[in-house]
Order: sequence, then C-alpha cells, then structure tokens
Amino acid sequence: MDINPLRTSIELELQKQVSRLDQTHTKSFHEMLTYHMGWTGDGAGPDATGKRIRPLMVLLTTAAAGGDWNNALPAAAAVELVHNFSLVHDDIQDNSPKRRGRDTAWTKWGAPMAINVGDALFVMSNQAIIDLKESYPADVVLQAAEVLHNTCLDLTRGQFMDMSYEERTDLTSDDYWPMVAGKTAALLSACCHLGAILGGAGEAKQDAYKSFGQYLGLAFQVQDDILGIWGNEAVTGKSAASDLVEGKNSLPVLAGLSANKKFAERWRQGPIKAEEVEELAKLLATEGGYETAHNASIQMTDLALLNLREAEPQGDAGDALFDLAEMLLKRNQ
Amino acid sequence: MDINPLRTSIELELQKQVSRLDQTHTKSFHEMLTYHMGWTGDGAGPDATGKRIRPLMVLLTTAAAGGDWNNALPAAAAVELVHNFSLVHDDIQDNSPKRRGRDTAWTKWGAPMAINVGDALFVMSNQAIIDLKESYPADVVLQAAEVLHNTCLDLTRGQFMDMSYEERTDLTSDDYWPMVAGKTAALLSACCHLGAILGGAGEAKQDAYKSFGQYLGLAFQVQDDILGIWGNEAVTGKSAASDLVEGKNSLPVLAGLSANKKFAERWRQGPIKAEEVEELAKLLATEGGYETAHNASIQMTDLALLNLREAEPQGDAGDALFDLAEMLLKRNQ
Repeated sequence: MDINPLRTSIELELQKQVSRLDQTHTKSFHEMLTYHMGWTGDGAGPDATGKRIRPLMVLLTTAAAGGDWNNALPAAAAVELVHNFSLVHDDIQDNSPKRRGRDTAWTKWGAPMAINVGDALFVMSNQAIIDLKESYPADVVLQAAEVLHNTCLDLTRGQFMDMSYEERTDLTSDDYWPMVAGKTAALLSACCHLGAILGGAGEAKQDAYKSFGQYLGLAFQVQDDILGIWGNEAVTGKSAASDLVEGKNSLPVLAGLSANKKFAERWRQGPIKAEEVEELAKLLATEGGYETAHNASIQMTDLALLNLREAEPQGDAGDALFDLAEMLLKRNQ
Repeated sequence: MDINPLRTSIELELQKQVSRLDQTHTKSFHEMLTYHMGWTGDGAGPDATGKRIRPLMVLLTTAAAGGDWNNALPAAAAVELVHNFSLVHDDIQDNSPKRRGRDTAWTKWGAPMAINVGDALFVMSNQAIIDLKESYPADVVLQAAEVLHNTCLDLTRGQFMDMSYEERTDLTSDDYWPMVAGKTAALLSACCHLGAILGGAGEAKQDAYKSFGQYLGLAFQVQDDILGIWGNEAVTGKSAASDLVEGKNSLPVLAGLSANKKFAERWRQGPIKAEEVEELAKLLATEGGYETAHNASIQMTDLALLNLREAEPQGDAGDALFDLAEMLLKRNQ
C-alpha cells in the first residue's frame, strides 16, 4: 500500500486544525505552532515534522478494520496534536534545548510562551476529535473523545512518575511498566483503539487493536532503552550510552537496581560521567540488565503481533499495519 | 434562592472528577491537585478554593433557562477545572509565588511538576464535560464540548496577547478588548452559554445568555483594572496601584498611552516605582484614563444587564443570577 496519500492528507488536516490561530492578533502565535509542527522556520521540512507514526496508525487501523480512512482524519490529527503538545511541555520540563536538531519552542520564545503553545496544541486536539461529527454519529464521536481524554490523563500520569522517579533511590523494575504505560504505550494504544472504533470493528476486535497498540508501545520503549545504552549511534541518531549519563530510569537500569550489585552501587552514588559509560554498560550487561530488557522486548513484541493477528486486519491497510509494526520493532537490527 | 446546596454539589462533583488520579502510583500527584483546588494542605478551606463563581453561573443559568441544575454539574466542574488549569499555568508564566495567600503549585513542587498539574486539570475538564452524557443526548454533549474547547482556545489567545504586550511599546486602547475577551470574558460567556444549552433554551436565548456572560466578564475586568489603580485595598485585598508597579496593560493605562501625553511619556521610560504611584495615578486620571475606563465599565454593565433581561431568566435561579451579576459588578461601591 502506498502510504504517501495518507501522509499528505494528515499534513493537510493538521494544518487545517492549527489554522484556527491564523487570525488578526494571533499571527505570531500561529507561527510558533507552525514552527513546532515542522512546517515553517529554520530547518522546516520532513526531518522537522517527525514521522507522523501515530496518525498513520489511526488511519491504517481504520482502513484495516473496514472503514474509510478519510473519515478518520480528524482523529489522526487529534493524536498527533496530543503528541506534539506533550513534546512541547516535555522539552520545558526536561530543559531540552533541541528537538530533531532544531531549537525547542521554549528556547526560541521562553518557557511562559512555550507553555501556552503546548496548551493551544492540546486544545486543538480536542477540537479536532469533535470534527469527527462531520462523518460519524454523535455517540461514536463521544466514544472517540472519551478514549482521547482518558489517554491524555494516562500521559500526565506517566509524566508524573517519570519526574518523581528522578528523586527516588528505591526504584526497581516493577516501577518501570506503569511509567512507560503512560508515557509511551497509552497514546499508541489509543491510535489503534480509535482506528478500530472509526473503522467499525466490534468490541472484541477493538480490544485486540487496543492491546496491539499497547504492547507495540511497550516493546518500542524497551528497545529504545536498550539502544540508549548499548545501541548504535547511526541507527538512533543519538549517542548510545547517553541514557546512562542522563540518569534515565530505563528498564535495563531499573533491572540493574533490582539486582542490587555493583551497577546499583555505582548508580546510587550520583551522576555517571561520559568516560565511565563504556565500562558501566558492560557491567550492567553482566548483571542481567541487558537480558531482562531483551527478554521483555521479545515478549512485548510477541504480544503485539499476537494481538494484531487476532484483530485480523484486512486488505492492503492490514499489510501496511504489519509493515509499520515490523519497522518500529526491528530498529535494532 | 439558597445557593449553598449548589456550592456543596459543585465541590463534590469537582472532587469526584479530580479523584481520577487517586490511584496507586499517583497518590502524591493527586495531592498536588487537591492542594491547588483548596481542599488539602496548608491554608485549605473556603478562602483557598475561591468563590466558584463560574460553576455557579453554569448551574444558575441552567435552572433559570428551565433545566435541572443537578444534570449540569459535570459542565460546572468542567469550567472550574479549566479556570484552575489556567491559574496553575498563569502562576508559572507570571512567576507568581502566591495565590489566595498560599504558595502556588510551582513554588511547592517546581515548574515542571506544576506544568503537569495544570495539564491534568485541563484533561479532567474534558473528561468532566463528556460525563454530561449521563443526563443528556450525545448531540447536546458534543455541542457543550465544542463550546468548552472553543473557549479554551480563546483563553490561549488572550494569554498570548497578554504576554506579547509586555514587550510592546505601541499599544493603544484598541489592543485591550481582544486580550480581555480571551483572558476574562470568554470563560464567563461559556458558563452562561453552557447553562443555556443544558437548560434547554432556544437559540435566541442562548445568544442572550452568552452575551450576558461576555459583557459581564468585560465589565468585571474593567472594574478590576480601575480598582487596581484607584481602588481600595479593603475591597480588593490587594494594594491599589500595584497594577502600575507591575506594568499591567490595563484599560486605564492603554487609554493613557492612546492619549499620548505625560503619563504615556513616563510609562514608556520603564518600570514605575512604588513612590511614584500616587502622583502617576492622579496624572493618568487627569489625562482621561479613569474616565475612559469608568465609561466602558458603565457601558459593559448596561449591556450585560440588557442581555440578561432579554434572556428572561426564570424563577429563583433567575433572581439569583441577577444578584450574582450585581455582586460582581458593584465591587467598587
């Protein structure tokens, strides 16, 4: 299946949603949003927009479940706007000066403006989901809106855990799953759930699609964690081992803390320096950090694909959904 | 009409909405929200919750338009959650350490956590409005959700203008109305609009209620601006003249800048010191700043009451709505 028409339609729908601010008195506010979305300003273009994985998942699932993906475009825009709202606020929270090689919103306009940019993207995600009423009955739109809102609360939960973990020294691998369920898996799960609803899937298939998205998100995050310590800079675009220096509470690290051996001892002593990273990554591997994460990655990947098969995605879109899952799950090969 | 049962029900509904975070892993996140809402922590109690004017407006309008206010409680909670989300983010943006005499969320937990607290309150407002489906058909719920979301975008517009005005030296009184329309009037207008929808008012009455809320908000803001320069500390609880020191682009100030005389000259030279305030307030009055604002206040108040009469609010709730308007509009007497 050629997914380029989907990509084009997603971009147009997003631009339409964001154009709500393209008015007298808010022209430069609108420009802040179009900059963040990757359409305008320094470095604008495909590298700046990101891959739009989430809206693609919505549209492919809609089609694979038997619906017309064109009707689901407002939902696709909604999830991408939620994702981008969370990125803008994340960047402030993490004090990150760059995203996709470009200055972040707060770097360019200060944190107060950037908070408001994130808020506006969030509002637009709510407005976008209501636009489904053009093609769907009101009760279906409400169901979709409810999925979106519940997911957003999960995002704030995950964000809370992530931030509160920074101050904790008693973490184990049990603390990992609820955090990444909120931070990464909830929105991917919502994409597939929304697509299933909008494609007209029955409840059992909705659940299967939802679980597919959930496990896909978890598998993806665990792989990202592995790459962040033992990965390959050419694949990830970021320095392997940067996660150790940044003190990220990834699954390998939490597994190392659970093991409570030499890695845990060093980790609890304070920030890791760049020159320690190579040896510490090896140490973590010998103490089971790699194996735990690798096994979890395989398990979550299996569960994702099992659920996708159970959902019986149809036609070219179904094949494309398998392809997309493969692409996301095989980044480390 | 005894509005205490309404107040009690509003508080219970808000607590129910916020309890979505009262779960394993997010207990202390939940506590951040209950602290901000005024229910827990140092200084908790009626002084900390605020007056809940907005949810009261929703319920009174619903009843005055012929509906049962109990059914509108989720909408009442939704507008109060929106208001509180905007306060939490405002406090970060304005760098305000205190609100209602208590430490603000960012003072207690830092800006990153407080951004997330505001985001969670925002999500809950969306979840609350969907809860209207317990008592209303899906198309009415969608209509209410749309009003809420459009209002939230207006809030971000007003916030953008307010922040961007800080850097501008070319402001006139024409720049005032679009800013306060977003920052203050939009949400009060939405309260009355939502109440009218949920009370079953026809379109003409919906418009009248909506305009009532809009002009009420504008009148209220102009009066607040007047009190902020020539007001009475005993009434407002804040030092008169503090608005001049804070450099607030209020209507009297913008009228003074439009007049482009001695006040404007001094204002453009940089921050006002406390010892200059008394004389500068007098100067601004002689150059028309007081008169412009006072006339606007009378005009907006008249328009508010005209529209309220046009809406023909019924029964005890109708009387209570007039009382509430009077209370809000006569703060300076």
